[in-house]
Amino acid sequence: METDAPAVAHVAVTTPPQGLTLRRVAIDTWRENVAYLHRDCAVVRAEGFQALSKVEVRANGKRILATLNVVDDVSIVGCGELGVSEDAFAQLAVADGHPASVAQAEPPESIPALFRKINGERLGREDFHAVISDIAQHRYSKIELTAFVVACNRSELDREEVAFLTEAMVATGRRLDWQQPLVVDKHCIGGIPGNRTSMLVVPIVSAYGLVFPKTSSRAITSPAGTADTMEVLARVELPFEQLTGIVREHHGCLAWGGTADLSPADDVLISVERPLALDSPGQMVASILSKKIAAGATHLVLDIPIGPTAKVRSMPEAQKLRRLFEYVAQRLHLSLEVVITDGRQPVGRGIGPVLEARDVMQVLECDPDAPNDLRQKSLRLAGRLIECSPDVRGGDGFAIARDILDSGRALAQMRALIAAQGSHGFDHHHPALGALTLDVPAPCDGVVVGIDNLQIAQIARLAGAPKVQGAGVDLCAKLGDPVRAGQTLYRVYAAYPADLEFARQACARSNGVSLGEAGQVPQVFVEF
Amino acid sequence: METDAPAVAHVAVTTPPQGLTLRRVAIDTWRENVAYLHRDCAVVRAEGFQALSKVEVRANGKRILATLNVVDDVSIVGCGELGVSEDAFAQLAVADGHPASVAQAEPPESIPALFRKINGERLGREDFHAVISDIAQHRYSKIELTAFVVACNRSELDREEVAFLTEAMVATGRRLDWQQPLVVDKHCIGGIPGNRTSMLVVPIVSAYGLVFPKTSSRAITSPAGTADTMEVLARVELPFEQLTGIVREHHGCLAWGGTADLSPADDVLISVERPLALDSPGQMVASILSKKIAAGATHLVLDIPIGPTAKVRSMPEAQKLRRLFEYVAQRLHLSLEVVITDGRQPVGRGIGPVLEARDVMQVLECDPDAPNDLRQKSLRLAGRLIECSPDVRGGDGFAIARDILDSGRALAQMRALIAAQGSHGFDHHHPALGALTLDVPAPCDGVVVGIDNLQIAQIARLAGAPKVQGAGVDLCAKLGDPVRAGQTLYRVYAAYPADLEFARQACARSNGVSLGEAGQVPQVFVEF
Repeated sequence: METDAPAVAHVAVTTPPQGLTLRRVAIDTWRENVAYLHRDCAVVRAEGFQALSKVEVRANGKRILATLNVVDDVSIVGCGELGVSEDAFAQLAVADGHPASVAQAEPPESIPALFRKINGERLGREDFHAVISDIAQHRYSKIELTAFVVACNRSELDREEVAFLTEAMVATGRRLDWQQPLVVDKHCIGGIPGNRTSMLVVPIVSAYGLVFPKTSSRAITSPAGTADTMEVLARVELPFEQLTGIVREHHGCLAWGGTADLSPADDVLISVERPLALDSPGQMVASILSKKIAAGATHLVLDIPIGPTAKVRSMPEAQKLRRLFEYVAQRLHLSLEVVITDGRQPVGRGIGPVLEARDVMQVLECDPDAPNDLRQKSLRLAGRLIECSPDVRGGDGFAIARDILDSGRALAQMRALIAAQGSHGFDHHHPALGALTLDVPAPCDGVVVGIDNLQIAQIARLAGAPKVQGAGVDLCAKLGDPVRAGQTLYRVYAAYPADLEFARQACARSNGVSLGEAGQVPQVFVEF
Repeated sequence: METDAPAVAHVAVTTPPQGLTLRRVAIDTWRENVAYLHRDCAVVRAEGFQALSKVEVRANGKRILATLNVVDDVSIVGCGELGVSEDAFAQLAVADGHPASVAQAEPPESIPALFRKINGERLGREDFHAVISDIAQHRYSKIELTAFVVACNRSELDREEVAFLTEAMVATGRRLDWQQPLVVDKHCIGGIPGNRTSMLVVPIVSAYGLVFPKTSSRAITSPAGTADTMEVLARVELPFEQLTGIVREHHGCLAWGGTADLSPADDVLISVERPLALDSPGQMVASILSKKIAAGATHLVLDIPIGPTAKVRSMPEAQKLRRLFEYVAQRLHLSLEVVITDGRQPVGRGIGPVLEARDVMQVLECDPDAPNDLRQKSLRLAGRLIECSPDVRGGDGFAIARDILDSGRALAQMRALIAAQGSHGFDHHHPALGALTLDVPAPCDGVVVGIDNLQIAQIARLAGAPKVQGAGVDLCAKLGDPVRAGQTLYRVYAAYPADLEFARQACARSNGVSLGEAGQVPQVFVEF
């Protein structure tokens, strides 16, 4: 080691006035705040700063943490200037040239608890609160964040720790209170392309009269999230006050959750969990339940799909996960019903924001061409939620949901939500799909005996989804369908030649559809 | 999540000529390469780059990995330019304006093995080679690096895995071959301030005629490493050819190991282990043994100090660690002798580069004031190494070492090494100590019954060591010494008022020396 690791000795020091002026440095460092100081700046010498030191930038009464870069070019920052990257500058919300100061960042108070977790100790309620609070305030470095996530992976958290973690994640953000005894929500653990049931369940159940303030995420690794698909139809980034107003008037909404500051630590944790493909049961349970409880839900229906290419691949695994969800929900006073559903293949036909929005609107319009699997699954989920209502008998929910859908009340409710959120004027009879297409043919006669959720999702992403709304995959055959050699299995839509080429290469490696004989279609047992 | 995590789909793409020219951006990002592209650069759009994407920069046949920052100011980089931070620019070793290109970095090939380790699987020899090779080539992000280190922490590596890890760390760097049947080395696991025995053992044992090419590290969290202290006397950053020439001529050297590219993955791993205070047995064994084997040692004496404030605090713990060292050494054909030594207090008097250099020279000159504990420990270690020689009988080594020291041959050998490496003209009779001092007095009469290694090291670091060579702590009393109220326990040296003030505050919290009655001095059992 040539130089010392930063941050060996942290000493709280009262920083004297430094006479620095703030300067916006037009460099986009995404979520990582960077501060720029000239090497000859007196503060660099006096404080013994090194590049990559963690510093606290103060201006106008605000404090943000940043990583230091040392600059040797006065045209970037002068010796009397304190440069900050674009995001950091926005967080400080002051003008260029404002007085500012910088100090060594003190280490987060929860670091001893982190070290204990790394060394395999069980943490208590207070520990989790301290760690999660520091994480939500962006006080952890990427190294510390990763260490926490990896140390909590696998069976390193017992179920009570998962409950403490969930509770802490709820406590660090905003918690919505709808002033209602019954607030319903639904969630799916993910992994199944095209699974846009929320966009049907919300209009059906809120039309019935239950309060259903649905906040969703955008896609992280999938070709479309509910927020991405709803955005084809209407605005989803709603100011918090508008969101609550819509829910009061219409009993529901279909909005992006990012503006509501719900379980903010979750977003920070995800930023390291995703690149490591970490999705342990404890982390999944804490992430999902903290978001839902913070959003004010009292009753939740949770969808765990199982299948050969789903996240959960066997019934024992699904049941183990269900028990953990149930334990934590009960500890946090959330009424939870878990359903274990068919995850053998994508739901509906379209995969990608516009294609999925088209499927949803076809179901709402009771179009005879609408994908029946999406309709049936949505009705069953809606039925379960309607049965949360004390005046509905067990078993009656499905019929009530079907009446609401078939009578056009769900469509009317969806139109009302679209208008309230701000319509984008989507016409699903003439969807704006990518202009470039690729038809993937069956290589031989046979019956579809497998559709690989992961491969189809990957092809849709390579084609441009979800960033390119009209890109994706439109399935022409589903499990059990007989096909002839040369018949189209699915069509890929893209907007850019490079994207189509990436998708074509992926299809050439594996098109994701297996053909065989009728008896080879895998069976799945569900609890739904 | 507002945006997708980077690097979800990695596709190998042949990048067309981009017409970019390289530009040095005068920003020091330390060990992290950063590439800067303007937001309106055609490549940013075409490749779908986002800030923080991992990219590969290519120029003049060289390729380096970097993290991308997106720039909105043409005075930093123009639309046709590819900016790189100072370190990255130096690695490419071409002129400003050279043609360059940039592409999405392909994910490291060993990532599947990393994911398996995170999920608790045992890895095999090939897996460790793949992971360590990617780490040594800086192909891992901080997140991936941390995940590996944390997943390997505690008892997550069995002893065969530790051997595989060590072997892989040796294989990824340079391995020195001294063309000698017997090449000796010594190492201490660290944690004891003032423990500069190498600077005595090397001259004694190399004067005896054994080949002893000692490469050391600088301090990471301690107030001085062997390289820092030797640098007071002579140059330690030697070009590799000079280093080998000195060893051929003098049988020994006392150099900084950084220029020799020994076990380079170790340095990368340390950059995340230190901030997390990780020092698990497996990682310690792999780190130490890989460096020593790569340096060409055939026989190693390893020092494990035990004591209440040492790294290892009990004999069972020390013996367990010893067995792991022995197992891995035997697997890698290294002859190893482990000694378990007294780590109850600092060794010698001085703590800090100049003070420790003074102690060493006093011992070499057989000054009656020389610290006897440093002399005795060095003689015993040197004796063990001399007994590696086939013509020395067990038990005779100590007397041979003492003769070499007392006859002045060790001093002459040290002077020869200093001259060969390039003397800095240090005069230990008039050491250049910090001009500012603080005498820490005994608060009452009593006997010294405890000296806290950690606290004394921290005070010496706050006073400026090792960066300020003349800063540190000079102990005036050791365990068992009687002191009177007001008598000086130790003197702190500093060069800057702020440093002295930090040290004073730390002393005020705890001066690190416990007083009591003679019978309270803790006993320690050693195997030495």
